[in-house]
Amino acid sequence: MSQTQKKRTTVDIYGQQYVIVGTESSSHIRLVASMVDDKMREIGSKNPSLDVSKLAVLTALNAINDLINLRDRYEKLEAELNREKDEKR
Amino acid sequence: MSQTQKKRTTVDIYGQQYVIVGTESSSHIRLVASMVDDKMREIGSKNPSLDVSKLAVLTALNAINDLINLRDRYEKLEAELNREKDEKR
Repeated sequence: MSQTQKKRTTVDIYGQQYVIVGTESSSHIRLVASMVDDKMREIGSKNPSLDVSKLAVLTALNAINDLINLRDRYEKLEAELNREKDEKR
Repeated sequence: MSQTQKKRTTVDIYGQQYVIVGTESSSHIRLVASMVDDKMREIGSKNPSLDVSKLAVLTALNAINDLINLRDRYEKLEAELNREKDEKR
């Protein structure tokens, strides 16, 4: 998609501004940013002694953990779908 | 699963140690941590002026973006599987 134009979206995460450049829509970027902000605040409220960088690393750790688990579930679902399709043949 | 025992796993992410407490296996935690570390180094090499906390926030942003996109694909796959099953009835 060489014609896709890159957009600049400014978001606020944990009191800090970030300019995100990418092809995703601004509303999508804002949704993602608000999820990161929410997660940082959730982890921060449970661990008030953590500094921002540790809080952000733990947020990334949580998100990548969720991503790996969902990838497993996705692969299982894909295999199930393929079995269903094979049975029809 | 009240009998699941919580484990403590120490991981190293971007030169900093973290003790992760949870029910996931230590090998799973180490895999997740190495993915966070890799992603932080990848983003850091492209943006050498970023400090650790911004780097970690951008890593979290990336991971949550991937998570949302995969959730969309998961839901579509689930809908397709349900259609296949309906057709068999």
